[in-house]
Amino acid sequence: MKKLSEKEIEQQLAGLDGWEFNDDGIETSFEFEHFKDAFSVMTRIAFEAELQQHHPDWTNVYNKLFIRLSTHDAGGVTQNDFDLAKIIEGIVESE
Amino acid sequence: MKKLSEKEIEQQLAGLDGWEFNDDGIETSFEFEHFKDAFSVMTRIAFEAELQQHHPDWTNVYNKLFIRLSTHDAGGVTQNDFDLAKIIEGIVESE
Repeated sequence: MKKLSEKEIEQQLAGLDGWEFNDDGIETSFEFEHFKDAFSVMTRIAFEAELQQHHPDWTNVYNKLFIRLSTHDAGGVTQNDFDLAKIIEGIVESE
Repeated sequence: MKKLSEKEIEQQLAGLDGWEFNDDGIETSFEFEHFKDAFSVMTRIAFEAELQQHHPDWTNVYNKLFIRLSTHDAGGVTQNDFDLAKIIEGIVESE
């Protein structure tokens, strides 16, 4: 999987809502009502991540979820990260 | 819930395996075989945390899980944190 250029990353970021390119990864955060809501979304994302064999780096603090996607093997952002980002957006929007 | 003194914290840490007191919280990390194993443990912890109404601050990166417990309302470590730490140890040991 090829590491994307900054220009390619910026183009794809334009198609997402609230993600930022930072330190060779793309990042976002969400705030839910309660812990249960955050963890339910995490569980749905976990199944999809496992299916993609591409996993988020993520931090949960009660109702908050911070997500960072990067492709460690490629040393940057690849299409896999954007594919997973779109899946995550779809899950969060469907809540 | 009363904030514990450093002495009380040190005493209780002695009864746990691999936890450290840091920046007004107690912290540990675990490494599992795969993402699925880490997330399975997180799910079991999530149910118990919800039952206790006391939740971890935690970060997952593939097979690694970093956990920090502190009682935000008390501005430090309380008995609730040690109760949850013991529950987490029990879950991880049973894997």
